[in-house]
Amino acid sequence: MPWMKTLNVELGTRSYPIHIGSGLLGRPELLQSHWHGQRLFVVSNETVAPLHGERLRTLLDGQPVTWMNLPDGEQFKTLATVESILTRMLEARLDRGSTLIAFGGGVVGDIAGFAAAIYQRGIDFIQVPTTLLSQVDSSVGGKTGVNHPLGKNMIGAFHQPRAVLIDTDTLQTLPVRELRAGAAEIIKYGLIQDAGFFAWLERHIEELLDLREEVLIEAIYRSCACKAEVVAADERESGRRALLNLGHTFGHAIEAGMGYGRWLHGEAVGTGMAMAARMSEHMGWLSRSERERAEALIARAGLQLSPPPEVGAERFRELMAIDKKVMDGRLRLVLLQSIGAAVVTGEFPREALENTLPPRERRETGIG
Amino acid sequence: MPWMKTLNVELGTRSYPIHIGSGLLGRPELLQSHWHGQRLFVVSNETVAPLHGERLRTLLDGQPVTWMNLPDGEQFKTLATVESILTRMLEARLDRGSTLIAFGGGVVGDIAGFAAAIYQRGIDFIQVPTTLLSQVDSSVGGKTGVNHPLGKNMIGAFHQPRAVLIDTDTLQTLPVRELRAGAAEIIKYGLIQDAGFFAWLERHIEELLDLREEVLIEAIYRSCACKAEVVAADERESGRRALLNLGHTFGHAIEAGMGYGRWLHGEAVGTGMAMAARMSEHMGWLSRSERERAEALIARAGLQLSPPPEVGAERFRELMAIDKKVMDGRLRLVLLQSIGAAVVTGEFPREALENTLPPRERRETGIG
Repeated sequence: MPWMKTLNVELGTRSYPIHIGSGLLGRPELLQSHWHGQRLFVVSNETVAPLHGERLRTLLDGQPVTWMNLPDGEQFKTLATVESILTRMLEARLDRGSTLIAFGGGVVGDIAGFAAAIYQRGIDFIQVPTTLLSQVDSSVGGKTGVNHPLGKNMIGAFHQPRAVLIDTDTLQTLPVRELRAGAAEIIKYGLIQDAGFFAWLERHIEELLDLREEVLIEAIYRSCACKAEVVAADERESGRRALLNLGHTFGHAIEAGMGYGRWLHGEAVGTGMAMAARMSEHMGWLSRSERERAEALIARAGLQLSPPPEVGAERFRELMAIDKKVMDGRLRLVLLQSIGAAVVTGEFPREALENTLPPRERRETGIG
Repeated sequence: MPWMKTLNVELGTRSYPIHIGSGLLGRPELLQSHWHGQRLFVVSNETVAPLHGERLRTLLDGQPVTWMNLPDGEQFKTLATVESILTRMLEARLDRGSTLIAFGGGVVGDIAGFAAAIYQRGIDFIQVPTTLLSQVDSSVGGKTGVNHPLGKNMIGAFHQPRAVLIDTDTLQTLPVRELRAGAAEIIKYGLIQDAGFFAWLERHIEELLDLREEVLIEAIYRSCACKAEVVAADERESGRRALLNLGHTFGHAIEAGMGYGRWLHGEAVGTGMAMAARMSEHMGWLSRSERERAEALIARAGLQLSPPPEVGAERFRELMAIDKKVMDGRLRLVLLQSIGAAVVTGEFPREALENTLPPRERRETGIG
């Protein structure tokens, strides 16, 4: 029997297990306790289903299942896609006792989880995330939703899964850039609240990227545990949960500046974390050696330490809306007081930020 | 100062007050504690806004408000309407600290409440219901949602309001049929669980329909209290909440048989309750005098005691899917053991049901 770890996410009556291991799609007993003969509805996508769908089909063998594949891509993360899922669910005559299974990466999980949240005012759902990023990020927190033309993730609901099944074998087919993007989020958990995990990652990052089973399982387990701890303290995202946004403000400027989709979200977050580490050093919080450790691990994960020159210094500031937000005191950043201890703060010297951003060109006027 | 009653709906951290009285739209202090300078977004409709909008505008004077009127009618209770609201909310740059106010009848409350439930994964909302039915029905329970072409109320969420403001003055402009429909739901609460309230209604039903202020306030208060008690025991609708469906299975057959919109939902429920009372008598549960009391009160509220002949005996049975459901034991009805005590049961003699439904034509064969 393959090795497996199980993390229980404690949320009172909505507590659920995350099973992590190799070959879990071959172990029907892990999910069977979560349904009771009612209909199952699988939402996957056109990339994941051909690669791994057969194993899920076998796992569900004998159950009444309806299967729906979405087109692959963030551009389909819309209310229209959700409506098409709801229509198929009604056509399949799913009642409120049915269970939806989300089988794919973060986009599939967000869309399908939201469909489960609003179908007949909410039915059970099970997550089977197939990318490293979704395994360590979407498995915990209950966030579901879609984009609106006027903003990302603007429509959604909090809806906790009944169970999460993470089969690390699905990572064998994952493109290397997506592995790195997932590694960025894993490093993030070490940086914001678990110095021991960070040190463990320093010893194992190459094995992680080499998909060494026991390292993957441990890294995913500890990442989910970190996130679960943050989320349990702050389920509805008012305070502490904001720490999960380490590297995100810088990262969003990179993603938007390059045009969404050119850099993966995780790649941009990786670079954003390196920037946050440097700014934390400028503030005198992080020592030079700690900043170097942070940068070194990020670089070993195959992530960039500096934003791409294409974005440009002025554009970068515009995208962060810095001038407006700093003026109003509304620019709040997640910074590091040490490795394993992050804080959200709106109080920082402007120079610490300026020194972190791509340098502006000198435009001195006067007699040359 | 006009008379007012306040009911606190106890739901732990999501508890909220229902203020009921005359002239409440002239009392800004009732709502002011529920927002804190953030943006307000009012959803109303083209019928209610011209009649009562000015008073709400005055109430909110000085607040940053965006106002949106929906077209009036159940046919607009769709996901497309919700999306148009979400778009306006984003255009108005509502953040998560904003509050949505639903100002209208049940349809407005259902749609707007659902928009509040899924905007940025949920923002606060306040209900200001303006019809008798929505005042006694939608104020409690947290059900929000819209219809899908394949089924009514198939898309939605549970989302509790922060407060409900019921100004009985808004009923002055309500068409009499809608008053009667609301009265049907009020009588329902007495029948299912409050014999004392039922007896009170027997003394006051005409004054209620005459819009006597103190009678309205008391009737609405006690109705909301009855519903709150049921919902508190069963927030997610598994068991006891089903009692609220007294008269609904028969009623739905009437609504659907006549074509949706010809009979108001409350009118159909009124007739359905009379049918349920007669069936309960056929079962030997309700005494003849109790059945007569139930029928008399329903009739005094201006509601029909028997289904319209247009539906037809066979069609009525088809619409209730009786043959299929009784066979499978899946037809469960809410019946009365006495006035003030309802039960949900799937166990009843077929004759008790047959004697209640419109009689089939005799089609005896043989030599005439």
